[in-house]
Amino acid sequence: MSKRIVTVSREFGSGGRTVGRMVAEQLGYKFYDRELIQMVAKQSGFALEFVEETGEYSTTSSLLYNLSMGGVYAQGGFSPDHLPPADKVQILQNNIIRELAEKEPCVIVGRSADYILRDRTDCLNVFVHADKEFRIRRAVEEYGFPAKNIDKLIVKKDKARASQYRHYTDQIWGMADNYHLTLDSGVLGLEKCCEIIVALAK
Amino acid sequence: MSKRIVTVSREFGSGGRTVGRMVAEQLGYKFYDRELIQMVAKQSGFALEFVEETGEYSTTSSLLYNLSMGGVYAQGGFSPDHLPPADKVQILQNNIIRELAEKEPCVIVGRSADYILRDRTDCLNVFVHADKEFRIRRAVEEYGFPAKNIDKLIVKKDKARASQYRHYTDQIWGMADNYHLTLDSGVLGLEKCCEIIVALAK
Repeated sequence: MSKRIVTVSREFGSGGRTVGRMVAEQLGYKFYDRELIQMVAKQSGFALEFVEETGEYSTTSSLLYNLSMGGVYAQGGFSPDHLPPADKVQILQNNIIRELAEKEPCVIVGRSADYILRDRTDCLNVFVHADKEFRIRRAVEEYGFPAKNIDKLIVKKDKARASQYRHYTDQIWGMADNYHLTLDSGVLGLEKCCEIIVALAK
Repeated sequence: MSKRIVTVSREFGSGGRTVGRMVAEQLGYKFYDRELIQMVAKQSGFALEFVEETGEYSTTSSLLYNLSMGGVYAQGGFSPDHLPPADKVQILQNNIIRELAEKEPCVIVGRSADYILRDRTDCLNVFVHADKEFRIRRAVEEYGFPAKNIDKLIVKKDKARASQYRHYTDQIWGMADNYHLTLDSGVLGLEKCCEIIVALAK
C-alpha cells in the first residue's frame, strides 16, 4: 500500500519508540523522536525540558482541535505573540510535523502526529501497547528507571498522554478507531511488530 | 508464535467476519460464527433469533464479570434454573466457547470470546474496524441492507455491541489494550488483514 509516513503512538514502556526506530532503519526513513523536541526547542527558544513536557503531557488549551476546526487561531484571530508558551510550543510542533511529513518519508514517535497528519492519505498510524508487567520490566531493565514506584510512574505517564491527546484532539487515546493498526508488543514481540509495520508501509 | 485460537471482534460492516472466515480457511481451523448461535439455540431450546440478539446485544446483567470474579454465580449460589433467560444463554455460550477452544483450533467471531478465553495463552485476539463510509458501502453492497438509514443502523449496532461488551466484561469495546492486534480493514484491505493474522497465528 506504500505509506511515506509512519506515526507511532505508544504506552510508556511498551517499546513503541524502539519499534519506530527499527522501522525507520529498515525502511530507510528519517526517524523523529527527540530530534523533534530539539527542533521545537531551537526554533522557539524554550528550554528542551519545557518543550518535552509541554508537547506530550500538558493540557493548557484545546489548541490543535481549535486549529483543525478552523477556530480563531486558524483564522489568524490571535497573534502568536499573545499565546501562552505551551500553545506556542504546540503551534510550532504542529507546523514542524507537517513540514517534515511533506519533506521526506519519516517515522514520527508520539506528539499526536497521527492527529496532526490525519488529512494525509500517505500515513500509517500505529499504536503500540503492552501489559503492565512487560512495561515495568522494560522501564527498569531497558530504560534504567528505578524499580521503586515504577508502576505508579507508568500509570502517571499514560494518564498524562491520554489526557493531553484527549484535550488536543477530542479523541480517546488508545481507541482502535484512531489508528490503522494497534499492536500488543508484549505478546507479539518488538521484532514482529516492526515486521508487520514495515510490510504494510512498503 | 503459534496460536490455536483466533477471536475476531468487529465493528458492524467492517468485514471482520469475512476476515475471520478467510483466516480459518487458510489455517485449516474451524470457524464459529452463526454455528455458535445454532449450538446455543439447540442446547438451550431458545429460538435462534433470541440467542442471536441476547448473545451479542443484550445487557441484562453483569454475568460474565460475576463469573470471572468468582461471584455468586461462579460459586453455584444460584441454580441456573432460576436465572433470567438472557443469563442462561450467556452461561451456555460461555461454556460452549470454552469447550470449543479446548477441543480444537478455531476462529471465533464476536460473542466476547476474547474476554471469555482471556486466561488462555494460545489465543490471538483481534479487533477489526473501519470508517463509516467503508462500512456503509459494505453493508449495502455485500450484506444487502437497504441504503436508507443504514448509517443509523450501523451506529445502533455498534452501540449495542459496545454496551454489551462493557456490561459483561467491565472493559471498553474497541480499546487497543483489550486486543493483541487491531486492524483498520478499510485502509489495509481484508486480504492484508487476513495475511497479518495468519502470519501471527502460524
